[in-house]
Amino acid sequence: MLDPKHIKSLKDLVGEENVFSDKAHMIAYSYDATRTRFEPDAVVFPRDEEDVSRILVYCNHHGIVITPRGAGSGFTGGALPTSGGIILAMEKHMNKILEIDMENMVAVVQPGVINMDLQKAAEEVGLFYPPDPASEEYSTLGGNVSENAGGMRAAKYGITKDYVMALRAVRPNGDIIRAGKRTIKDVAGYNVAGILIASEGTLAVLTELTLKLIPKPNFTKAYMGIFPSVDDAMNAVFKSLAAGANPVAMEFMDDLVVQALKEKLGIELPEDAGALLIGDVDGNVSEEVEFQLEILERSFKENGAQDFVIAHTAKERDKLWYARRNASPSITIFGSKKLNEDISVPRSMLPEALKRIYEIGDRYGFKVPCFGHAGDGNIHVNVMVDGSNEKQLEEGHKAIKEIFELVVEMGGTLSGEHGIGTSKAPFMDIAFNDAELTLFRDIKKAFDPNNILNPGKMGLPN
Amino acid sequence: MLDPKHIKSLKDLVGEENVFSDKAHMIAYSYDATRTRFEPDAVVFPRDEEDVSRILVYCNHHGIVITPRGAGSGFTGGALPTSGGIILAMEKHMNKILEIDMENMVAVVQPGVINMDLQKAAEEVGLFYPPDPASEEYSTLGGNVSENAGGMRAAKYGITKDYVMALRAVRPNGDIIRAGKRTIKDVAGYNVAGILIASEGTLAVLTELTLKLIPKPNFTKAYMGIFPSVDDAMNAVFKSLAAGANPVAMEFMDDLVVQALKEKLGIELPEDAGALLIGDVDGNVSEEVEFQLEILERSFKENGAQDFVIAHTAKERDKLWYARRNASPSITIFGSKKLNEDISVPRSMLPEALKRIYEIGDRYGFKVPCFGHAGDGNIHVNVMVDGSNEKQLEEGHKAIKEIFELVVEMGGTLSGEHGIGTSKAPFMDIAFNDAELTLFRDIKKAFDPNNILNPGKMGLPN
Repeated sequence: MLDPKHIKSLKDLVGEENVFSDKAHMIAYSYDATRTRFEPDAVVFPRDEEDVSRILVYCNHHGIVITPRGAGSGFTGGALPTSGGIILAMEKHMNKILEIDMENMVAVVQPGVINMDLQKAAEEVGLFYPPDPASEEYSTLGGNVSENAGGMRAAKYGITKDYVMALRAVRPNGDIIRAGKRTIKDVAGYNVAGILIASEGTLAVLTELTLKLIPKPNFTKAYMGIFPSVDDAMNAVFKSLAAGANPVAMEFMDDLVVQALKEKLGIELPEDAGALLIGDVDGNVSEEVEFQLEILERSFKENGAQDFVIAHTAKERDKLWYARRNASPSITIFGSKKLNEDISVPRSMLPEALKRIYEIGDRYGFKVPCFGHAGDGNIHVNVMVDGSNEKQLEEGHKAIKEIFELVVEMGGTLSGEHGIGTSKAPFMDIAFNDAELTLFRDIKKAFDPNNILNPGKMGLPN
Repeated sequence: MLDPKHIKSLKDLVGEENVFSDKAHMIAYSYDATRTRFEPDAVVFPRDEEDVSRILVYCNHHGIVITPRGAGSGFTGGALPTSGGIILAMEKHMNKILEIDMENMVAVVQPGVINMDLQKAAEEVGLFYPPDPASEEYSTLGGNVSENAGGMRAAKYGITKDYVMALRAVRPNGDIIRAGKRTIKDVAGYNVAGILIASEGTLAVLTELTLKLIPKPNFTKAYMGIFPSVDDAMNAVFKSLAAGANPVAMEFMDDLVVQALKEKLGIELPEDAGALLIGDVDGNVSEEVEFQLEILERSFKENGAQDFVIAHTAKERDKLWYARRNASPSITIFGSKKLNEDISVPRSMLPEALKRIYEIGDRYGFKVPCFGHAGDGNIHVNVMVDGSNEKQLEEGHKAIKEIFELVVEMGGTLSGEHGIGTSKAPFMDIAFNDAELTLFRDIKKAFDPNNILNPGKMGLPN
């Protein structure tokens, strides 16, 4: 519990109307998409960067823990106040698009801006902000940068880190720092922006982001490859890409997901589909789109595809994507609770990885429907259990651990896009050795010697 | 001077044949492209990562300074042993391409591999490694990563950092760390690879690099825009890019460079050219190449271009690029010594930046021929002085300082691609405030508490 004198001091710093410690607020800011709950002691809404600096100076001095928070839509607990203290919520005031610079094709935004709001603002002036996490309608850009959010378009366009040109942030001691420039090339000083991306709010508080925009391609078409088996589809993924295909997205759904979409939502999908690959291709000229579709069709068919479908109208395209977008909600037919993890492996390992993940599921007796961003090697693996059965939950977590061990052994990562937070913290020592974990702690200490920023996340000390 | 007992110990660690302290070696490893000289006390050629670790453990314990070195082709002194100690030279043993993984489109290399050797190896299997610093024929990939080297293709393809997927490195305490993965998405743990890129050998010693390769585009054409003035050309740069052009390169030469190319090398160039923009466009389909050329021609002509030339044959293309490649050697007609700096500004600031850079030159009475990578905002600015005239040299350095102040005021950076090293270290406080410089020192201390790795570089403590 925070001493009431601190609440009063924080109110003096940023205004009475921006500091709350009532029960309703504590409950409202206790959760994220992990559905676990930790109540903070106070919620503070900074009005600007100066407020952030003042709050950090105060909390650093008094050893008060701070958890920065965007929309609280994270899947791994990065925005949960697991050690109490205060939530620093960016959504109320620090939520403005400050500039769309069309001449240099960059946007300058505050961390509380919703991803989709930036996408729309860019599109209005003929530009394009590609990172599209599934949470794009409600997650904030500050959260996206802190977790280095991915999305479907990563296969061609990369992830959030590829779009961060510069940022402003506040260190726990209150120091305001700038990192990066509105230029493609900048090699002066350490790449501080690089280390703050994906640092999950443990090193500094982001206060402004300068993000790269690109010209919007003129032509887009959607495609679907229908495969007899997951193995065929997974081979087609890396072989088509190695053959020169560069699709915007290449999304995968396995036979269980196809079954769930049919049974639960009545979505029409090809008979006997053992796996699907769905995606978009784009280009400045229609010939580039055709070029991409030709490589994909040839490569898919060489790898066993039964059929290759091109969506020629917006309606056909929407139909293909409707299936993909409903993959996640549909699979609950296999169990009331899904233990979902987003693993990522080098693409050529996908066939073997999927085969062995299903074997793990079989051994435990769980269905493990898989779908996701195969084009960049990132798969959402869902171990389906009966959430009311303690024994099943325990066994499910054991299966997840085995999956992580497998993925790391194959040169993959614990998390392709969700981050580590608290959910994956227990698995850090699978992926990193003592020397690497020590380095993480050394970096943390250099930025935040009093450990006030989001302690205990990413496997770092509490 | 290094105590002879240390030389003996180092020989015990890595073999007699890999440690030298004779005068000839000390001279051979005393220089880089800055042409200043600092002799080390010893040169050590590690055979592998284990050797690197052993050497670092020993030197860290005994407080012996280490300067990692690739080819010594840097322009800012990053590889100069300014504090003596040992040179850790990667060229002899740690110079192998370990793997070209065609399935995942990555290369795994040791740091001593020459950039062009990787470009060629990739090309042989139909892949493409885009970063092309002017030193590509002799600079090493370890050096490229340490300085975050740029090049001509950055306008479309980005710079070295955009191609580093993973790396291995050794900390001063001997700890071997891995960072990153052979996957597009990886958000587990701090982005250690991100902070090691461009760290100029001050944080850890790179021992292995995993670099992204991409499919080689099928079609390339070169173009040249001829402009009456630098101002017109600089407007055309950012306006054509904002209009959707995405050229591989957009290289600039001003009227002085054009004059020098004609006078010194007899190169045929258009009469009355006040400035030139030269570059390539590429694509998977010829229509994309034509699309790009159309945007460029339209945009260039809207911004005052007298002519737009397309090279239709390899010979015509070579002729255009021959001029650009000889820009640097030709300009010595304006002074025996060039004080050359590679500034970078947001592209829309190029017209104003160039105008004011020439004004600074005029005020001091120096010619300042400029050329470079306008498409990414990076310009090589050359203050030409009489190298034998002390007074001129001193005035030239004053002009350079004014240019840096101007560039930073315009939102630009001290260095687009050459790094800071020792040459630009005195200007760090123009670009960074106390809080930022303090953070750099804190990061350095976290990685290298005894300050044995390349001390004194980047404005960090000696």
